[in-house]
Amino acid sequence: MGGDFAPEATTLGAILAKKELGSSVELVLLGDESEIVKILEREGENKSDFTIIHTDQVIEMGEHPARALSKNPNSSISVGFELLRRKEIDGFGSAGNSGAMLVGSMLTVKPVPGVIRPCILSALPKEDGSEGIILDVGINADCKPDVLNQFALLGSLYAQNVCGIENPKVGLLNIGEESEKGNLLTQATYYLMNKTKEFNFIGNVEGRDIFGSKADVIVCDGFTGNVVLKEAEAFYSLIARRGLLDDYFKRFNYENYGGTPVLGVNAPVMIGHGISSPKAIKNLLCLTKEIVHSNLSDKIKEAFV
Amino acid sequence: MGGDFAPEATTLGAILAKKELGSSVELVLLGDESEIVKILEREGENKSDFTIIHTDQVIEMGEHPARALSKNPNSSISVGFELLRRKEIDGFGSAGNSGAMLVGSMLTVKPVPGVIRPCILSALPKEDGSEGIILDVGINADCKPDVLNQFALLGSLYAQNVCGIENPKVGLLNIGEESEKGNLLTQATYYLMNKTKEFNFIGNVEGRDIFGSKADVIVCDGFTGNVVLKEAEAFYSLIARRGLLDDYFKRFNYENYGGTPVLGVNAPVMIGHGISSPKAIKNLLCLTKEIVHSNLSDKIKEAFV
Repeated sequence: MGGDFAPEATTLGAILAKKELGSSVELVLLGDESEIVKILEREGENKSDFTIIHTDQVIEMGEHPARALSKNPNSSISVGFELLRRKEIDGFGSAGNSGAMLVGSMLTVKPVPGVIRPCILSALPKEDGSEGIILDVGINADCKPDVLNQFALLGSLYAQNVCGIENPKVGLLNIGEESEKGNLLTQATYYLMNKTKEFNFIGNVEGRDIFGSKADVIVCDGFTGNVVLKEAEAFYSLIARRGLLDDYFKRFNYENYGGTPVLGVNAPVMIGHGISSPKAIKNLLCLTKEIVHSNLSDKIKEAFV
Repeated sequence: MGGDFAPEATTLGAILAKKELGSSVELVLLGDESEIVKILEREGENKSDFTIIHTDQVIEMGEHPARALSKNPNSSISVGFELLRRKEIDGFGSAGNSGAMLVGSMLTVKPVPGVIRPCILSALPKEDGSEGIILDVGINADCKPDVLNQFALLGSLYAQNVCGIENPKVGLLNIGEESEKGNLLTQATYYLMNKTKEFNFIGNVEGRDIFGSKADVIVCDGFTGNVVLKEAEAFYSLIARRGLLDDYFKRFNYENYGGTPVLGVNAPVMIGHGISSPKAIKNLLCLTKEIVHSNLSDKIKEAFV
């Protein structure tokens, strides 16, 4: 039931995902059963291809996350987290109220012991054809150096296990290349990162390096990351509106990624864009499957022991 | 002598500026007189159209700013600041060592009384055809709320007096529209800005609003602003490299602006890009003239009394 166009876009997205993922993946749809069945039948789908769990409450986009969760124990978001906690599902995604998705991650699934702050990421389409990530992109507006250092490890594990990048190059987003450049946060973080053996720190990267090959994982506080992400969205919109999208710039379409994992919690949680289209939902589900199969959560637990 | 291609690019830029500005502006060239004269003669220019002041020291790009200034009193940068301090020139620009330009601004020309931290800005080409600014873009990596509040006033005065925007809309760069969004810095700054009568505060703007019509002046700390600026440069390069520059994206070429003023010091100081071409130098000089004619420094002094 999550997202601006649910359950239409979510159900259509699940149908697309089923076609792509095949029968080895069980897709569990949480929401108003009669509405879901109506869409499946209209599309000529066999409803027995999906596991449908009826929920009769909906958390609206504007609601206060924690209050909404406790007030709506039978919403698709609340039920999803409960199933994930009980390990009845392997991963859970929603394009609904992202605050509620975060609060649910923290309260139900809980951070991996040792992780100070879970975070979210965005894919970065690189001009060389590869794909990098940037994190955090919005849930930790104020960070300490040790938190950024953990983001680096979380991002490195994600890049390695989900994106398949061997020994990912980790860069610290800064305003100069030299070690002494930056604000108090990045200066102190550079010092920490430079001593670590836990990931492959390649030094500072600048705004101009974001889409280049210098780093696979770019680390920053959630304030800076959110501004970077939204500026990239602004450019994507400008380029699209002016009819200049080529194959490279098309890769900036959020639909290709579908959403971001909440990194650093005990089980795979995926947050989709509120405006998710069927294609975006499909890709969110496919990415969830990749993350489940990568055993990322276990790898993170091992790294943070 | 400042910039990667001086004195060739700077002298050619001065020739272009002379053509555009005419005889009402006296262009004073600081540098190796014989080299400058050689270029002027080669280009068929009349050297008496320019005032040439010979300097025989050069501050290199990599030198430590404060040391370089004291060690090289007869460099073009040192002499320029001295002339500006003595009011023998009305404005001073260089594409040389930008650290030395900043230190010279602070030590020789000095901040306007009341201004806690001078700052630098970047022009923002808006899709609606207008032009906005963002500040600070790099010299104040860590800021306090009262400093951001002053940037807003400085930017508003610049937009009004130099860009000719009546009652400029000032936005605070943040990661959400609502007043309670953001990091500790922007939350506290919002509170300050929201009470002010000194400029037209329109609230928070996000990364996606940077090139839109919501705000004429976008205020942020120098760390965030530098990342925003360099990300825009990255997109400009990508778009250019892919052969997709249209009339709008062409406006992102740094050559169109030439440089940034140091806002909040007692006289017009302009810092150019190290890689400045003749066109960039020409536009730097033309913008310097605009700023001198706008009496911006006096307007700032009045506002900060």
